[in-house]
Amino acid sequence: MSGVIVTGPPKADARDIEAVAGYGVATVSEAMGRSGLVGPELRPVQEGVRIAGSAVTVLSWPGDNLMIHAAVEQCGEGDVLVVTTTSPSTDGMFGELFATALKRRGVRGLVIDAGIRDTQELREMGFPAWAKAVSAQGTVKATGGSVNVPVVVGGRSVRPGDVILADDDGVVVVPRERVREIAEASKAREAKEAAARAAFQDGQLGLDRYGLREKLDALGVRYTSYEEYAGEAGA
Amino acid sequence: MSGVIVTGPPKADARDIEAVAGYGVATVSEAMGRSGLVGPELRPVQEGVRIAGSAVTVLSWPGDNLMIHAAVEQCGEGDVLVVTTTSPSTDGMFGELFATALKRRGVRGLVIDAGIRDTQELREMGFPAWAKAVSAQGTVKATGGSVNVPVVVGGRSVRPGDVILADDDGVVVVPRERVREIAEASKAREAKEAAARAAFQDGQLGLDRYGLREKLDALGVRYTSYEEYAGEAGA
Amino acid sequence: MSGVIVTGPPKADARDIEAVAGYGVATVSEAMGRSGLVGPELRPVQEGVRIAGSAVTVLSWPGDNLMIHAAVEQCGEGDVLVVTTTSPSTDGMFGELFATALKRRGVRGLVIDAGIRDTQELREMGFPAWAKAVSAQGTVKATGGSVNVPVVVGGRSVRPGDVILADDDGVVVVPRERVREIAEASKAREAKEAAARAAFQDGQLGLDRYGLREKLDALGVRYTSYEEYAGEAGA
Amino acid sequence: MSGVIVTGPPKADARDIEAVAGYGVATVSEAMGRSGLVGPELRPVQEGVRIAGSAVTVLSWPGDNLMIHAAVEQCGEGDVLVVTTTSPSTDGMFGELFATALKRRGVRGLVIDAGIRDTQELREMGFPAWAKAVSAQGTVKATGGSVNVPVVVGGRSVRPGDVILADDDGVVVVPRERVREIAEASKAREAKEAAARAAFQDGQLGLDRYGLREKLDALGVRYTSYEEYAGEAGA
Amino acid sequence: MSGVIVTGPPKADARDIEAVAGYGVATVSEAMGRSGLVGPELRPVQEGVRIAGSAVTVLSWPGDNLMIHAAVEQCGEGDVLVVTTTSPSTDGMFGELFATALKRRGVRGLVIDAGIRDTQELREMGFPAWAKAVSAQGTVKATGGSVNVPVVVGGRSVRPGDVILADDDGVVVVPRERVREIAEASKAREAKEAAARAAFQDGQLGLDRYGLREKLDALGVRYTSYEEYAGEAGA
Amino acid sequence: MSGVIVTGPPKADARDIEAVAGYGVATVSEAMGRSGLVGPELRPVQEGVRIAGSAVTVLSWPGDNLMIHAAVEQCGEGDVLVVTTTSPSTDGMFGELFATALKRRGVRGLVIDAGIRDTQELREMGFPAWAKAVSAQGTVKATGGSVNVPVVVGGRSVRPGDVILADDDGVVVVPRERVREIAEASKAREAKEAAARAAFQDGQLGLDRYGLREKLDALGVRYTSYEEYAGEAGA
Repeated sequence: MSGVIVTGPPKADARDIEAVAGYGVATVSEAMGRSGLVGPELRPVQEGVRIAGSAVTVLSWPGDNLMIHAAVEQCGEGDVLVVTTTSPSTDGMFGELFATALKRRGVRGLVIDAGIRDTQELREMGFPAWAKAVSAQGTVKATGGSVNVPVVVGGRSVRPGDVILADDDGVVVVPRERVREIAEASKAREAKEAAARAAFQDGQLGLDRYGLREKLDALGVRYTSYEEYAGEAGA
Repeated sequence: MSGVIVTGPPKADARDIEAVAGYGVATVSEAMGRSGLVGPELRPVQEGVRIAGSAVTVLSWPGDNLMIHAAVEQCGEGDVLVVTTTSPSTDGMFGELFATALKRRGVRGLVIDAGIRDTQELREMGFPAWAKAVSAQGTVKATGGSVNVPVVVGGRSVRPGDVILADDDGVVVVPRERVREIAEASKAREAKEAAARAAFQDGQLGLDRYGLREKLDALGVRYTSYEEYAGEAGA
Repeated sequence: MSGVIVTGPPKADARDIEAVAGYGVATVSEAMGRSGLVGPELRPVQEGVRIAGSAVTVLSWPGDNLMIHAAVEQCGEGDVLVVTTTSPSTDGMFGELFATALKRRGVRGLVIDAGIRDTQELREMGFPAWAKAVSAQGTVKATGGSVNVPVVVGGRSVRPGDVILADDDGVVVVPRERVREIAEASKAREAKEAAARAAFQDGQLGLDRYGLREKLDALGVRYTSYEEYAGEAGA
Repeated sequence: MSGVIVTGPPKADARDIEAVAGYGVATVSEAMGRSGLVGPELRPVQEGVRIAGSAVTVLSWPGDNLMIHAAVEQCGEGDVLVVTTTSPSTDGMFGELFATALKRRGVRGLVIDAGIRDTQELREMGFPAWAKAVSAQGTVKATGGSVNVPVVVGGRSVRPGDVILADDDGVVVVPRERVREIAEASKAREAKEAAARAAFQDGQLGLDRYGLREKLDALGVRYTSYEEYAGEAGA
Repeated sequence: MSGVIVTGPPKADARDIEAVAGYGVATVSEAMGRSGLVGPELRPVQEGVRIAGSAVTVLSWPGDNLMIHAAVEQCGEGDVLVVTTTSPSTDGMFGELFATALKRRGVRGLVIDAGIRDTQELREMGFPAWAKAVSAQGTVKATGGSVNVPVVVGGRSVRPGDVILADDDGVVVVPRERVREIAEASKAREAKEAAARAAFQDGQLGLDRYGLREKLDALGVRYTSYEEYAGEAGA
Repeated sequence: MSGVIVTGPPKADARDIEAVAGYGVATVSEAMGRSGLVGPELRPVQEGVRIAGSAVTVLSWPGDNLMIHAAVEQCGEGDVLVVTTTSPSTDGMFGELFATALKRRGVRGLVIDAGIRDTQELREMGFPAWAKAVSAQGTVKATGGSVNVPVVVGGRSVRPGDVILADDDGVVVVPRERVREIAEASKAREAKEAAARAAFQDGQLGLDRYGLREKLDALGVRYTSYEEYAGEAGA
């Protein structure tokens, strides 16, 4: 596979990225119409951290981290490194040395559809990561791949420059052209959630708040006492 | 699927539930003859918490949390919400808003054979949960299901009103009719474990304590030196 | 299956084991030519702990912990208990009582290709463990197996007396004959990593440090601007 | 686990079972409101066979087939053996010898949430089976379990005497009290499917047949040309 | 999720599609630089069939086949239906009725990152399918989605109009702009394979044919006799 | 990883291998004390074929088939190629071209803990294979590995020269030193199975044949009527 290293992909406006960073992954995904999420098989290796930044994407051969080296040079302030492999792998292709190099360049974190290692060191140095596996298995530098091409991570397409938002709930990808719009929709969503939270604390039911009693009725869901039900079911 | 919402299922006596809550999941499962456990794919999202309560069960369509809204109304003091889907799903169908509503009603926690989100918020507000996945994927409110019917969670049958006990080791289901009996058996089991612990701290071997040397012998397990073994195996 | 309990297997020199214990699992595996690792499905149940010791191996029938009882007697100061089952199992065949007995004997920890329970208690008593699952499912004592025979754990062969090194990154197996050699290679590896870390902190690129620009070129990986790439791909 | 062997569980009427046997698994599950299905991880080991019969249930310890021996005696003409284990197992606990004994007794087939072996022989002798795995791993006869108690198979509850229907699409469980009702609903469902089939062969669209254009509109799904869409998405 | 149904996406030239259809999936993927493959979790439900056609893509809510109904209208001669869900699902959302409608419209087959049912009927009517699961679980028609938008299937991006080639080895996606180029590269690749086949039949070794002895040497791979190796390893 | 290619490993006597080849995998594994099996995740890609031969082992880097080329030269009449990767991989690293080369050399088949491709061609040319996955994903020839060293395949250790027996039930590994002994034990086992088969056809029960009624009683398994049981359980 002779690949390509693409330089200078477009990015979203930094202020829009900061705006999106003010909301959680769940809120932003809801604001996108319940879409944009990377699969839950990618988990954070730390707790209580949220990051947002512009994707620098890497497509590597399994068991090979050559293209991550190539990608480091393409990374800068405010970026998030996004790595996948051409076929599934859990090898620990990223560790503390890469994190050292990236942190110096202002990179905000890592999202990897493969394994990482040195998780204790990553937590200590404050370099957040979301990964499919933790594995000490090292890799070679023998086969080509690509940097800054569209990739699929956790079943989700990511283009270079798309905005990555990640927290304890997972990772969401915001298309670079839609960041401002999504930040605004997230703000509206959050206001709606705050109102619901207050109402629920006051004892209101979602059934009433969202008009779901009518829907249950229309769907034919009926209420019955346990005695009646047990009698029918013979249970 | 037009479902049913069953009201007023029978529950175990509150004092019996409190009695069971005094033991760990492993002890109670042993006291039930090594049975009753929900599969290990359901994991706690917090550490060091144990809860016990009466199951309010929910059967939802995948990608749909309508029936959780219906279930909230059926939940009260001392209950544990138990949710499953008609086919496997990792969607984050439960989050901080539901937890807010349930906490106000005195619900003790959640056991869900699907995904949850807002895990950081759940930990902060002290609403414990055991789930199959963490996922920010939101859900719709479009398809009917049932509340307080028998469900299967992690390969284990749960009826409404059965007692749910959950801690770091997982989740066990105690049939509502057997709670007192199991609490007593757990007490006996715990005493037995305490005696074994003391003996092991004193250096006694399980081989001797449980009469296992005879069993090994009867099974034909023999002792051999490494030299002899290596010679035979050619290893 | 009538098994065998092998006594007195050879061990590595204690000073060599201590020497290896000075390095992390990733470093030691790299020093072994990127080999020796147990699969990442075995995870630590605690954070920030590293152990090293001589393997006492156990081959058990699934759902049966009889042979762990037999193995306790074979364990002593500086050992690590290594358990697997004849077919895959997640049952919690090891818990706080076994840990109590082993701790008294000076055993350093557990590596198990099955489930464990009492994880909270294990953390509190400081007995570290690496396991495939956490499960409260108890086991019987009915079927024979073997102690101190070669076993496969997480896809990796382990012989009795081989050195087990485990930390947050996972578990590596060092053949008992090669411990000193590997400790020395690990020292060299660590020095190399320290130099790379310093260089990366200074802003050097891996591309330059490892001469990878030539390799990328030889592999046909080319650089292109985003505009050019987007034009070609029609993306 | 000291178990129980329950004799003489109730069964559905043989003519009702034959009536249900006239329909496929998918049709019957639809007729049950899209419920009753065993999970797709249980697969047929033959092609093109459909069976129906009364469940004789077995709960076995993992790696142990003692209770299948006990169950054989409880099996008779028109039964289907349904086996599960107390914790997950892929061991080949059923093979040609059991099939020989069961076939003589008029048993129609096997549904097992574990492994089987001798699949080639089973196909040759015409004893159909649905299993989670094919494995030659043999089992012991050492630990008790139960026969004809409620079990969970592939995430689905089965009571002794419930009707098992299985074909290439999988396995469905019909509660023994509802067999006649479900057979009739299946007949109606099949008629509906036949009408749809004819209409689709004539070129009618489901969109029109089921009035889905209005639903799409109500849900806000809109039509757009590729040119318009590509312009918006910048794709 | 309010979605969109995109009409009239661009397609590749029919003669180019036919040209690609002359080669197997493995050959075409090699010709694309070892890329383009859908993951191996999608398996054919028949044996010995190869198809090629233009993708009509569907993004459905899990447990919901509404959008497949919408997609049927967008399908025509030479198309292949490509279906995925917004979160993972094994439900049998496609069966014989859909296949009847699609076959009449000249559709060549189905690729689905979810479940299908009626596999026996599909084989009998000659409608080929590649799916992640076989499941009789039916679905509702309640939630919106999209047709002819880019989707991810088996970890691979597919745009409407991209060419789908599928056989016993799996599924490969050829970008619609590159079909002619890839057909030509496949022809070259096949010629190369034919020459290798002939050479291997004559007894030539790949080591010699591809100059790999030098590579092994350069990589430091050395030859040794078993005696020497066994001596070193102490094995 | 600089590896090693070991030449001339010891093999079992050809007549002993033929003797073992007269029995099925399940019988031979039973004769070995229910051991020796490769995990059920390796499945045959053909039906009704049994092979036996001497293992030539390969340890490859993931995504790389260089060492299979090296292994071909080490293969001869009566061998079985056994391939694994240093970390898990489903890539199709073996196909029709390798089979062509191996068939000419008298190799009997392939066992691979990774993926294969060209399965249709392999069936047509009569080259049997057992694999973890079918995948068209091609591989590179860039990284070293080893030939004829001990490997782990499907969780089972295999040394070069060990005897591989494979059929529809899976794969068993017979240590090269024990082939004659195991062939004899298999003969005895088969005789025992034939007697049991005849008895079962005559209607004898396993309960009686194996004296299991006493065992059930000793284990505390009791018989009860459905009426009594239902009364107790409140079910």
